[in-house]
Amino acid sequence: MPSEHEILAMERQALERWCKGDPLGFLEISAPDVVYVDPYSPKRLDGWPSLKSYYENFRGGVNGATGFGLIDPKVQEWSDTAILTFVFTYHGGRDDGKRWNCVEVYRRTPSGWRIMHTHWSIAQATLAS
Amino acid sequence: MPSEHEILAMERQALERWCKGDPLGFLEISAPDVVYVDPYSPKRLDGWPSLKSYYENFRGGVNGATGFGLIDPKVQEWSDTAILTFVFTYHGGRDDGKRWNCVEVYRRTPSGWRIMHTHWSIAQATLAS
Repeated sequence: MPSEHEILAMERQALERWCKGDPLGFLEISAPDVVYVDPYSPKRLDGWPSLKSYYENFRGGVNGATGFGLIDPKVQEWSDTAILTFVFTYHGGRDDGKRWNCVEVYRRTPSGWRIMHTHWSIAQATLAS
Repeated sequence: MPSEHEILAMERQALERWCKGDPLGFLEISAPDVVYVDPYSPKRLDGWPSLKSYYENFRGGVNGATGFGLIDPKVQEWSDTAILTFVFTYHGGRDDGKRWNCVEVYRRTPSGWRIMHTHWSIAQATLAS
């Protein structure tokens, strides 16, 4: 079995911390000039300080979720770029079973892979529910 | 005034064709191994042939739209990668004024910039309406 791509392992670790109420996992692997898009933030977030302020809203956990699913991940990689696409779902809590599309664009830097772009969106199964 | 980034000009041209009912504009600038995510397709689309089949559903126009807005674009570029993030809205038709988040990841190839990843999602203003 091929080993898991490094960015997928990084994403899992950050999500594990996220679901325990610790947004620092994502902040530690995000680039200074990261760009972030989701359906709730009124505007695109440009840069690490903006993302940090936003993520602080999620410290302590998300609606009682106890875990998550990272479904059907795909990695595209070229040069020093890797894109991770997956479906995310919370286990437990108010959002149990709702599905999200998540895309992360990573850049390989001297310090390791860093997230340059995050785009979360609500997936069909959730829109229809 | 700085000139517009090449991928932004390409995106505008593809959107102009899209809004006239011609999805080929996007197909012509998408890579063979493009990945596509939106809130309506039940699954992620992997590869140009899958995207072509999907885009054929939009031939002839989208709900009577007569034009579009490409709002607040941002380009991140490094090596042979460029990410375009913007808010999209239709003018006219049934979806007039609804807002979308759109992110396109382009890769520079010997043939020019090509879309490696497209992610459309419904933006807050539309979710709330």
